[in-house]
Order: sequence, then C-alpha cells, then structure tokens
Amino acid sequence: MLSPIEVNNNILEMEYAVRGPIPKRAAELESQGMKIIHCHIGNPQALGQSPLAYNRQVLSLVEDPSKIAREKALKNVFEETPVTDIKESDFLSEEILVVSETILSKMKAGGTGAYTESKGERFIREAVASFIDKRDLTDNPNGVASDPEKIFLTSGASQGVKFVIDLLIAHGNDGIMVPIPQYPLYSATIKKAGGRQVNYYPDEESGWTFDQALLEESLAKARSEGVNVKGIVVINPGNPTGAVLGEESIQTVIEFAKEHHLAILADEVYQENVYAGKFVSFAKALGAETAVPLFSFHSISKGFFGECGHRGGYLEVRNPPNIQGSNLDFVDLLTKQASVSLCSNTAGQILTYLMVSPPKEGTASYQLYSQEKSRILNDLKEKATMIRNAFTHMNGVECFGETGAMYLFPRLNKLPEGKTDYDYCMALLEKTGLCTVNGSGFGQKEGTSHLRIAFLPPQKLLAQVLPKWIKFHNEYVG
Amino acid sequence: MLSPIEVNNNILEMEYAVRGPIPKRAAELESQGMKIIHCHIGNPQALGQSPLAYNRQVLSLVEDPSKIAREKALKNVFEETPVTDIKESDFLSEEILVVSETILSKMKAGGTGAYTESKGERFIREAVASFIDKRDLTDNPNGVASDPEKIFLTSGASQGVKFVIDLLIAHGNDGIMVPIPQYPLYSATIKKAGGRQVNYYPDEESGWTFDQALLEESLAKARSEGVNVKGIVVINPGNPTGAVLGEESIQTVIEFAKEHHLAILADEVYQENVYAGKFVSFAKALGAETAVPLFSFHSISKGFFGECGHRGGYLEVRNPPNIQGSNLDFVDLLTKQASVSLCSNTAGQILTYLMVSPPKEGTASYQLYSQEKSRILNDLKEKATMIRNAFTHMNGVECFGETGAMYLFPRLNKLPEGKTDYDYCMALLEKTGLCTVNGSGFGQKEGTSHLRIAFLPPQKLLAQVLPKWIKFHNEYVG
Repeated sequence: MLSPIEVNNNILEMEYAVRGPIPKRAAELESQGMKIIHCHIGNPQALGQSPLAYNRQVLSLVEDPSKIAREKALKNVFEETPVTDIKESDFLSEEILVVSETILSKMKAGGTGAYTESKGERFIREAVASFIDKRDLTDNPNGVASDPEKIFLTSGASQGVKFVIDLLIAHGNDGIMVPIPQYPLYSATIKKAGGRQVNYYPDEESGWTFDQALLEESLAKARSEGVNVKGIVVINPGNPTGAVLGEESIQTVIEFAKEHHLAILADEVYQENVYAGKFVSFAKALGAETAVPLFSFHSISKGFFGECGHRGGYLEVRNPPNIQGSNLDFVDLLTKQASVSLCSNTAGQILTYLMVSPPKEGTASYQLYSQEKSRILNDLKEKATMIRNAFTHMNGVECFGETGAMYLFPRLNKLPEGKTDYDYCMALLEKTGLCTVNGSGFGQKEGTSHLRIAFLPPQKLLAQVLPKWIKFHNEYVG
Repeated sequence: MLSPIEVNNNILEMEYAVRGPIPKRAAELESQGMKIIHCHIGNPQALGQSPLAYNRQVLSLVEDPSKIAREKALKNVFEETPVTDIKESDFLSEEILVVSETILSKMKAGGTGAYTESKGERFIREAVASFIDKRDLTDNPNGVASDPEKIFLTSGASQGVKFVIDLLIAHGNDGIMVPIPQYPLYSATIKKAGGRQVNYYPDEESGWTFDQALLEESLAKARSEGVNVKGIVVINPGNPTGAVLGEESIQTVIEFAKEHHLAILADEVYQENVYAGKFVSFAKALGAETAVPLFSFHSISKGFFGECGHRGGYLEVRNPPNIQGSNLDFVDLLTKQASVSLCSNTAGQILTYLMVSPPKEGTASYQLYSQEKSRILNDLKEKATMIRNAFTHMNGVECFGETGAMYLFPRLNKLPEGKTDYDYCMALLEKTGLCTVNGSGFGQKEGTSHLRIAFLPPQKLLAQVLPKWIKFHNEYVG
C-alpha cells in the first residue's frame, strides 16, 4: 500500500484562481451541454480572435522551409501559364518569402529544430532591443539604449517573472511588494519560492493610481513584521484592474524603489492594449537612472497578437545588481537558470521576433497587418465600452481607471448580507453561463467585493449575455 | 549606486556543465574563426540532421490552416489542367491534409494560438496513453493501461522533472537518489529545490548495471547523514553513459523502491535510441504493482525526431501518492504547478502528438517516414561504432555498456599526473575543435576520469576529426 507523502508545502498552499474552482465548474457545465462564455482568462484566440495572417504565414514557412522553394516554383509556373481559378493573391507575397528566408538564415544551424542559446536567438534579442529603443528613445534624447545581452526570450512572460523572483528570494523572510488586486502568477510564484508577499493598495477611486504614502505604509508594515523587502511588482496596464497608469505613478515607484533599494518588476504585457490614457514604459521613465534594477516583461500572448498557446515573451534587465559573495552578476544567474531548461521554444521566439519587427509601412503586408491590428484593438475597445455601459444598469456597480489590458474589474457595492463575490460569480455562471473570476481570487481591500471580466467574447455574444447579467445582478443584490 | 544583493544561494551554487565553461570556450574559438565540432550536447538538428518531412508538413499546416484549403484548390486545378514542370508529388499528400485537419478539429477553439488545458490537449494525452499501451501491453496481458488524466504535456522532459522534484522536496533534508554519472538537470533541479542529492554508483565495468547492494549502500549512507530519501532517478538509456539497462536492473530498482517507499523517476527520453540490447520501460516492468509511485519522462528532442528547439515532451504518472494533510493527490498538485505556467507550448504539443501517432503502415506517408527514421537511427549507430573504434587506438581508453542514447562516455585511464578530464577536454577543444564535456561535469566515481561525446556530427566530419583526436590523445597521455 502507498502511504501518503509529505510534499513541498509552498506548492500545496499555492493558489491560482484564474484556473480555480469557477472555471472548473464552467468546464463541468459545458460538458453537460450548457453554453459557457469564457471571460475568466485572457485567451483571445479561444474566443474567436484570428491570428494575424502575416505571423502565421511566416511561421508556417519557417517550420517547413521546403515550402519556400516550392512556393516560388509554383508561382513561376502559374505566371507563365495562367490557369483559370488561380489568382496571384492565392500565392504568398514576395515579402513573406523574404522575411521567412531571412529568419532561417539568421537562426543557428538547424532552424526551429535546434536548441537556441539559453537566452534565445541573438538576432531576436537584437530585434527586441531595437523595438524597445524605437518605443522609448524617439523624441527622448536622454534615454538609454537597450542591450541585447540583457534580454532573455522566455516561455511567455511568466517564465521571466519566475526567474527573477526565484533569484530575489534568498530567505524565508525576503519579500516582494505586489499591488492588490494582483495577477495570481505573482502570489503563486512568491509562495512557491518560499518568500513573503507584501501587499500594497493602489487607490481604486482615483483610477488605481498610487502615491508615495501608500507605498511607504506598506513597506513600513512589512518591515515591522521582519520582512526584508527586495522588490516591487507593478502591472501596467493592470491585471486584473485593466487600469492604465499615468507617468506620475510610475515616477513615484521609481523614486520609492531608489530610496529603499528595491528592484522593480514591471509587467508590461498589455502595453498595446491601451484604450484610454497613454502607455509609458518603466524603461523610458527610468531614463539614465542607474541606481534602480529594473526587470520588464512582455509577451506575445496579449496585445493584438493573442498568441497565448505559443508561449513566447521576453524579459529585459536594466541595472542588473551585483551578487554578494560572487563575481557573477544578476544577468549571469538568469542565464544559468535559463540554461537548465535549455531554451524557450523556437515557435514562441519567432513570434516574438515578428511582434517586435512588424511589416514596415509601404510594404505589401503592411496594409493587411494594420487593418487586422486596428480591427482587433477597436473591437476590444468597443467590447469594453459595452460592458462598462451594462454596469450603469446594475445596482451598486462601479468601475474605475482608464481602460486598458483585456479586463474590467468592477466593484460590487451591494452584495446581499453573507454573500461573497465568489458566491456571486458562481451564481452568475450557473444562471447565465458567463464565467468570470471573483475579486478575492486576486486579493482586494478588505470589505470590498469585485469580479474580473475579460472583454474578449464576440460582440454578438456579449450583446446576448449582458442583458441577462443585468437582470441576474439586480435580482441578486435585491 | 547599486549595492550588491543577496540572492537564492541554491541558484548561485547550481551548476550546469552541459552549458558550462568548455562549450563557452568553444563559442569564443568559433567566433575567432576556428571550426568547432559540437559534441557537447544532444542537439541533432544543429548538426545536420533533418526534421522528418511528415512532422513539419503537418505542423506547418496546423500553424497556417488557410493553407489546407489553398492546397486542395491548387491540387484540383492542376489535376484538371496539368501544367508542365509541376508534378503531383509537388503537392502535399491527402494524408497530410487529413491529419492536419484532424488535429485542428480536435484542438480547442483557437488552434495553436489558444492556451490549452494546463495538462495539455486531452486528445494528445489520449494519444500518448495509446502509444504507451501499444509499447507496453502488446504480448503482455497483465499490463496496466495508461490513464490520459495522469499524463502531462511538458516543455521538454525537463519541465516534468522539475515539477516532480519541486514537489518531492518538502524540507532541506529531503533527498533524491541519482545515478553517478548523471545528467546535470537532476543535480541542478535538486539543488534549486533546496534538497539533497544522494549519489548511487552503477557498476561501470558490468555495463553501468546495478544490483540491490549498491543501492542499499547509497541509501544507508544517506540515512546515516540524516537525509530523508524520497525518490530515485534512473536514466535509461543512460545520459551521459549511453548505456541501455537490462530488465534485471530495472526490476532491482522497483523492488528497492517498494521496500523503501521511494518514488521512481524514470527518464526514458532516449527510448528510441537503442543500438544494442533492448529497451524496457519502467511502466511495463512495474506491471500491476501499486505500491510504487512512478514518474516516466519522454521528449520530442531525442529519438529520431531531434526536435529540441520545439520543447515538447510528456510526464506519465502511475500510482500517484496521496498527500499528507490534504485531500489532494500528487496529480492534483502537478496540475496546479502546470497551471501557473498556463500550458506547454502548442507546437511542442503537436509534435508530441505526431511522435506518439506516426503514419500507419500502408499509408502514403509511411514509406518516407520509415526511410527517414531508419536512415537517422542507422547513421547514429554507425557513428557510435566509428567512435568506439577510435577508442581502440587510444592509449588507456575504455568504454562500457550497450550503446544507446546519443552518447559515449569513455573512461580515460591514463591521464598525466595532475591533469583532470576537464584539462583534457579543454586541450582537446583547443587542439582539434572537438567540443566534448568532461566527466566531472556529470559526476563520476572518485579517482576516475571520463568525457562525454555526443555522436551526432556527420560521418564525414567525424572521419576527419577522429584521427586528430587519436593523435592528440596519445600525445597527451604520453
């Protein structure tokens, strides 16, 4: 007989609400035939968003390079001998062929089938650095250029976050500040690393912004409890709040981190998902400041790509600290960590390359790419607006912040006595098929209730479910 | 100014020789124009092995499904109006189209762009279970069928290994037995998890086999040092030894694990790379035994696929133990871990599917697939033989075990006084461009010296370098 074994308690206690009991119940209901509207996770392509044609055409050729020569041959033959029913547009554009060939020629021997360098293909890291420079140095002569050797291609953003947190947590009393509400990746990763999660509370009613005082308060409390705070996480645009941070809040964090010798972990995976306000990167705001270590994360899963399944992303490091008792620095240790999993997957690396080097204006692919991009982003904006409008018909529902990311995080002010937001979300699911995540899954200020809804389903579906939700809500809160 | 910070000491101390100083020096020499022969890592496609056409044709279509309809249209047009210079074989076979369509229809909405279930696509896990059953239950009526719910699709085998070890190590004195020499993934993962590595020493001269006595000895020593041993790793075929284990050694491990309540971690990523002897899986050897938890790992990176860059693989669990103080079992906790990184990449999942469900005999693709498979495996066998032959011309070099995996691990009996195998491998690199890894990078019995060579470079290249190596060797050992 097998006796029960003792396992790592950090993993046993770790929680991950985004794949927790409500989505599990949704899967059960779905298997029983109920129509479920999946708004619990930012998984755009699962909800009908198409991948960009350019991306997949290139990726497809890079995965099967023999098709490049064949495409050229077929094209030539049909040009010489036109055939009814075959149009020129049935063939891949010259540009797609050239980009695919360029990628293959720049990859190390073996193409997508070979391990890359632990950090990822150098030419892709160079392209990431150029992308960051273009984003941050235009009209900003005092900015500092990005260094490809301080860039890591990762399996989604989450692997980069894990690398950094696993390194920062040296002892059980080491802590990382996280905004509440937060994306459960942070709580789970800190928990698993055996560290302490130090909550800070952005001010909901001023649009989830923050000032020095609330950061100081959180830090002082943690220190009084013996926690050695080593870093601060900022998610901008926010997850789950969806709120876009202003430059003032960003500068506040940098000053605060400098004063207290903290590293900044800037989760900027939603930087293209900004429907109001303006995205400012931490790297840009940091400028020539050298006293603050900065780790910035980006991903192919969000923005207008939505390539979640391909698990691609990057981590950029600025001002890597030296390591006590070692002549290695932080970048060396990140490299060592990356090398144990050998490299991130090549399809994800290629999509990361395509994200940071889109077709240039004036090229054949540019027009379609731009159309697809605008359509996706406009559609997201319209869906956010539809849902925000629905809130105005719900008794005691308020939603703060400039709309960004893929989420709204409304506050439920009038839940019935004894009911939690978990109860609410579960009942909403059972009644309407709408699957959201309860605010308590992300953490929230005591005494408040929220939910997170990802504004991803097709507008037609939203138009059907929103009236049901309004009805459900007003009956539920009575 | 940035002051040095303290980081996780386990990561600081962790070592990973396969990407250590010798390959680093090789990269330097290469950038200076020296021709390097990369035999330090099992990365076949980087050394000229082609991916199987079938795999890439299917993957390419699944990544760009619009090409399926186009292919059909082009084919129809061509059939009706034959065109000079275009042959029927220039088009994809019906089977490739059907398999691609089948995969897309079985994937959740969104295809490769959507997150899958945390464990990976259910239909792929079902295909993995069928593959295991076909491998282990044929002519074995008492075998136990594999359960798709106990299978996890992982990013290479290494992610699965990490999941299991991270769970097993609950305290700093928890230990895992690993064979010496071992693949550094194990030492690094145990170190990072904060556990204790417990070495056991397979008997080199009998072909790296083991008996109960040497396992007991290792366990007793660890226990006397206060280590709570929880699992035992077996790598079969071996890495770095390349040795194929006989069924007797496997049964010995199972009996030993049962008696001492250990979990078995069976690294079987080289199960297709067997050039002498016969591969027997731990799952098959375990049979109906329910008292031993078994974790088996497989990967698309090795075998005849060599799809290293795509990071695909699986973990199969048998007899998952219950967890003390919890109503969850080990599979639940693995699922929770998988969910924090959301899912393994979809391209890797699809290649895993293709690995476990190759074209069937009699189909159009079967013939080419079988040819490619045989050519790759025969070529590997011939290269291993070439290198083994070279050893016979080297003074004091012996190599034990039935040849498997992609490695030979010769013992260097006659190094000059004061010289280590690290010195030898570095000098070999500088003199001949041949990049290997020193035995001490994997651990070895005290007083012995080895190196690991991956037998992957083209035969032509080996034929050039082997005489140089023989010359170098005999001069070096004097």
